[in-house]
Amino acid sequence: MAIILITGGARSGKSRRAEVRVCAFSGQPFYIATAEALDKEMGERIARHRARRGKEWIEREVPLDLVQALVETDGRGARLVDCLTLWLSNLLHAERNWLQEASLLADVLARQRSPVIMVTNEVGLGIVPDNALARAFRDAAGILNQTIASVADEVELVVAGLPMKLK
Amino acid sequence: MAIILITGGARSGKSRRAEVRVCAFSGQPFYIATAEALDKEMGERIARHRARRGKEWIEREVPLDLVQALVETDGRGARLVDCLTLWLSNLLHAERNWLQEASLLADVLARQRSPVIMVTNEVGLGIVPDNALARAFRDAAGILNQTIASVADEVELVVAGLPMKLK
Amino acid sequence: MAIILITGGARSGKSRRAEVRVCAFSGQPFYIATAEALDKEMGERIARHRARRGKEWIEREVPLDLVQALVETDGRGARLVDCLTLWLSNLLHAERNWLQEASLLADVLARQRSPVIMVTNEVGLGIVPDNALARAFRDAAGILNQTIASVADEVELVVAGLPMKLK
Repeated sequence: MAIILITGGARSGKSRRAEVRVCAFSGQPFYIATAEALDKEMGERIARHRARRGKEWIEREVPLDLVQALVETDGRGARLVDCLTLWLSNLLHAERNWLQEASLLADVLARQRSPVIMVTNEVGLGIVPDNALARAFRDAAGILNQTIASVADEVELVVAGLPMKLK
Repeated sequence: MAIILITGGARSGKSRRAEVRVCAFSGQPFYIATAEALDKEMGERIARHRARRGKEWIEREVPLDLVQALVETDGRGARLVDCLTLWLSNLLHAERNWLQEASLLADVLARQRSPVIMVTNEVGLGIVPDNALARAFRDAAGILNQTIASVADEVELVVAGLPMKLK
Repeated sequence: MAIILITGGARSGKSRRAEVRVCAFSGQPFYIATAEALDKEMGERIARHRARRGKEWIEREVPLDLVQALVETDGRGARLVDCLTLWLSNLLHAERNWLQEASLLADVLARQRSPVIMVTNEVGLGIVPDNALARAFRDAAGILNQTIASVADEVELVVAGLPMKLK
């Protein structure tokens, strides 16, 4: 089945592109949000995305157990995971082994029967961050993106709302 | 008429690429600079760009009223707008409604008779900035780029001086 | 002969891609490292790259005299230079004239008989850095990349481990 990774910068139109890709599959779409509405800024962003998608989507907040959520929802409609970068951030915050989780995710994706469309972020194209934590995060994000891209059937880079095919 | 958006990172060769695109159109080229020479660093950059372009260009400094400048100069030669990101920064600094201005710009672009070639910046592919103002700016820049890209006839991403066709 | 530039963000898979490109040429590959193991973080990264490459490579640490190293090693196997951004950083730190060195490198590349595969970084796609030194570095890196890309036979942008052809 189709495993699709949509990557890009902040506000590049990644989520919207991912929604377009999901809606091309038949069946009721499933939205797996890795974001939690912990502050006002994030709460507003979640509300905006929800308003745009409309009410036909099934929603589920999955800050950490993404692998389990994909296993449980497989065999029904297409899943949109938004986004892997935030999932990584949540794993690091919870002191989970992100590298092991990334590897497990790659394994599980290879066995899915229903489509999975994942949004992720490019965070490594600026100046090297001053602090070691930010450097560690961008290294981890880069490795996660490479790992998932290697098992994906399609990978797109979105710039200014426009997709470029990487794979 | 041709509406062309050239995007890319800092020092990626965007301005030079935009100049090449402008010069492919007949007639005297019109340069609309959104930069003001407020400090030495910016003054030097403006001088360098001017020296490279040569003297056949008509120049105009337009820090804020870009929409009006495009309306006024339409029907003559091609216009090069360098750059949208700085225009956005000026609008925010002047406490103008940037979202409304962006929408107005998109409307006006759709009705232009002479070519408009615009330079903009990708600023959202690094680590999430620490301060809220920088985050707000990169969000606004991403939305502005999507808005203008959606009405453009052509969009190019420039990396290391080399253009990639996005649209 | 083949002059190839591989660019991309942090942890995008640039080095691995460059190794793949080098190994397509016959003869013993030559590894020119611009990194010095000055701290633990860098020492670990160097060790990881070395373990991945295997032992058939000839290695040489060249923090500054890259041009000379290319001249000396020409006529033997393919050279992998990893990476230009760090070389630039070393030149700036040593107060060498980086612009002159970049220009000299471009001249020397044009005359090489054996392949040269170079890794570099995109650092200009984030928010404008606060401090002037970081801004100067990202400007220099952008100009260096443009200079080398202009004399390269091939240029690739690597995102999530996947190469996009720029030239």
